[in-house]
Amino acid sequence: MASSKIAVIAGVGTGRGTGGAIARRFANAGYKVALLARNGQALQALSDSIKATGGLASPFPLSAYSHSEISLAFDSIKKEWPGDSIRVTIWNVGEGIFLPFLDITEEHLQKTVDTKQELDNQGSRGTLIVTGATASLRGNVITSAFASGKFALRALSQSLAKEYGKQNIHVSHVVIDGAIATDRKYAKDDNPDEVLHPEAIAEAYEFLTRQHRSAWTWELDLRPAHEKW
Amino acid sequence: MASSKIAVIAGVGTGRGTGGAIARRFANAGYKVALLARNGQALQALSDSIKATGGLASPFPLSAYSHSEISLAFDSIKKEWPGDSIRVTIWNVGEGIFLPFLDITEEHLQKTVDTKQELDNQGSRGTLIVTGATASLRGNVITSAFASGKFALRALSQSLAKEYGKQNIHVSHVVIDGAIATDRKYAKDDNPDEVLHPEAIAEAYEFLTRQHRSAWTWELDLRPAHEKW
Amino acid sequence: MASSKIAVIAGVGTGRGTGGAIARRFANAGYKVALLARNGQALQALSDSIKATGGLASPFPLSAYSHSEISLAFDSIKKEWPGDSIRVTIWNVGEGIFLPFLDITEEHLQKTVDTKQELDNQGSRGTLIVTGATASLRGNVITSAFASGKFALRALSQSLAKEYGKQNIHVSHVVIDGAIATDRKYAKDDNPDEVLHPEAIAEAYEFLTRQHRSAWTWELDLRPAHEKW
Amino acid sequence: MASSKIAVIAGVGTGRGTGGAIARRFANAGYKVALLARNGQALQALSDSIKATGGLASPFPLSAYSHSEISLAFDSIKKEWPGDSIRVTIWNVGEGIFLPFLDITEEHLQKTVDTKQELDNQGSRGTLIVTGATASLRGNVITSAFASGKFALRALSQSLAKEYGKQNIHVSHVVIDGAIATDRKYAKDDNPDEVLHPEAIAEAYEFLTRQHRSAWTWELDLRPAHEKW
Repeated sequence: MASSKIAVIAGVGTGRGTGGAIARRFANAGYKVALLARNGQALQALSDSIKATGGLASPFPLSAYSHSEISLAFDSIKKEWPGDSIRVTIWNVGEGIFLPFLDITEEHLQKTVDTKQELDNQGSRGTLIVTGATASLRGNVITSAFASGKFALRALSQSLAKEYGKQNIHVSHVVIDGAIATDRKYAKDDNPDEVLHPEAIAEAYEFLTRQHRSAWTWELDLRPAHEKW
Repeated sequence: MASSKIAVIAGVGTGRGTGGAIARRFANAGYKVALLARNGQALQALSDSIKATGGLASPFPLSAYSHSEISLAFDSIKKEWPGDSIRVTIWNVGEGIFLPFLDITEEHLQKTVDTKQELDNQGSRGTLIVTGATASLRGNVITSAFASGKFALRALSQSLAKEYGKQNIHVSHVVIDGAIATDRKYAKDDNPDEVLHPEAIAEAYEFLTRQHRSAWTWELDLRPAHEKW
Repeated sequence: MASSKIAVIAGVGTGRGTGGAIARRFANAGYKVALLARNGQALQALSDSIKATGGLASPFPLSAYSHSEISLAFDSIKKEWPGDSIRVTIWNVGEGIFLPFLDITEEHLQKTVDTKQELDNQGSRGTLIVTGATASLRGNVITSAFASGKFALRALSQSLAKEYGKQNIHVSHVVIDGAIATDRKYAKDDNPDEVLHPEAIAEAYEFLTRQHRSAWTWELDLRPAHEKW
Repeated sequence: MASSKIAVIAGVGTGRGTGGAIARRFANAGYKVALLARNGQALQALSDSIKATGGLASPFPLSAYSHSEISLAFDSIKKEWPGDSIRVTIWNVGEGIFLPFLDITEEHLQKTVDTKQELDNQGSRGTLIVTGATASLRGNVITSAFASGKFALRALSQSLAKEYGKQNIHVSHVVIDGAIATDRKYAKDDNPDEVLHPEAIAEAYEFLTRQHRSAWTWELDLRPAHEKW
């Protein structure tokens, strides 16, 4: 069955962490998922595995999160699925890099306004979600550069939420406060009760895209029940 | 169909606002809903309307949110539905009153631990949700007493989230940042796009009870897309 | 030399911690210091030691921070020093108790407005400072009640700062984030570089009373240089 | 009288706002003040006016806050006053630009550690103060880029405060929450009670440099008594 909704997931990484789980979840929910990452091989594997389970996915590898490459990726997405509309964009790039996110907002938010993208049944024109971290809220000795980038992303997401809310576009910021379980992470010294499961994170992301326009969340935190915080 | 899950909603008010919507939502989700409020008449009407649509509900009117009345209400709930377990408690009392909430936490959280209440399929023993407000985050000229109570509730909910998380009980705090649409509120001078719909709020509350234990939210905010904040 | 300025220090404790240092500092700065605490003996000793070094001080013991005792204490202060005006009140009571502080604000803030107390050369009619703690900003497992009280005090101080700023009365909240060195504290297992010196805290309090009305601080934090935070 | 203390003020602007007032205050306090700004003419005028009142000052104009120009400026400062030590650096650049601040921290903080700069009588090796704004704490519709930069600076200042505190270097962040009175600002439509006086701001900055190491402030806010916030 063809879907007219596209979800762009930037920062898919190895496909075994949050980005991969988000991609699978949105594919299951009927989105065509556009996968962006710098690791082309993992990207292809994730795309294949989503297709193998009946989903629609396509890899869009970048050599870097530069203005030109991001712009090219969005052009390719539109060529791949002409006539469909980007309803969800997720910025899940791990590092606290900031400038490329501006390109994402330009590609998604401004074009959604420009094209007068139609409202869904919750009154929304689309959703942009930014993955934050503990360092989005607190600077620390070993995180000065990372925290600066993450604080900046949080500020921008708040500004954008205020600006684009009036345009019926939902911008959210998710503070992931803890270590995330990946294949690699489930090592012997990790208490499984102290790591976040990527699937559980993905569920929260999808929930954000389903909120009614009268009660949108800008920010929520996610952490394991047993974490000390 | 009998359900073994009870949701206690304290602060149902007139039944036409958030408390009422939450009650209806949890009833639809298969909970027996215990309705607490100081307005006995409205309480009975809400209970009747939930039953009329196939839900299970019962009113537990209080003359005040005092220690003894709260304690009595929980005793009555257990008598009403013996053998069932309280899985969800929602503290939705509008004012920033604080001490009665301590009784609620005693009745719900500590007894959940004491009775070794079983885990659900998300690894949770139960959920306690506190309704906050803009005044939970900022004191203001006209809100000094209200804000003090709301700040205190927020502090307590954070402490409890940390303490009871380790016991697999989920404590959340929802910051409702805006005016809520009720029958009364939908007046001519309210922009319908600047008020929160109680049903949309209720959806977020239910989502919190469904989160997997590895990625629990302590706090989220809810506000209308068009609000200036 | 007679002074016309009174500083009320509530929460003097043993006189060897923050309260005592604040009292000595304001006495040195030319204030008549009114000392309030529940420990009458320590209070008398502190008062005597301030007088011995040329300061003006008087003890006002309370058996509890109740409405009536606080009210009586302020009456006694006015009888002790008729014609003088209370320019500074400091709420340094350690526990997170909240209601008595409302009496303090009534006694100081509202009466300062009612009596049209004159402006000083910084454009101020007086200063009210509240001692906060780490728990004013974060609830934690072992601090639920304490944090609730401290959050509430912070909310109230913010509300009051907004309300009374317009009346040229300065309300400040000081977050003391760390252990305070007292005679008792300078024990062998405390790194002297990881504790706050009461005299250094007192200096910040006096600074707050000297700020010009065009640039008042509501909140500042104080912590040792070497603290891990 | 020769002084061995240098204060570097980056972001002096026209000399009539905060930067100028800070420069004058530190000159009065016995510092040799190194003035950095992109407006060479105003810089020279400020330097001259400080000298005319007996202070020691020197202008260091930059065409841009680039890595190379900042590095050159610090070299020039050391050539201008050989044997003296930079005890205070103030980053007062209005815009939310971020990267140049990293150069400042490199020039000041790291070299202070590398040269084992001696402690003053408060146990401090030096102070770095960052000028923040309302936008350091809240993103808003019209401030997205500005707020992002300001959030990032705040994050970095917090990280640096934690890292360099252990080295006895004090890093502070001042949130200036309001309009600042300058010659230009004192226009008819500004209520003089709703603007910050640069001299009052400067006093707070100097206070931060005089705090004892056992009770350092990372962050304080400054706003006019009558401001609505």
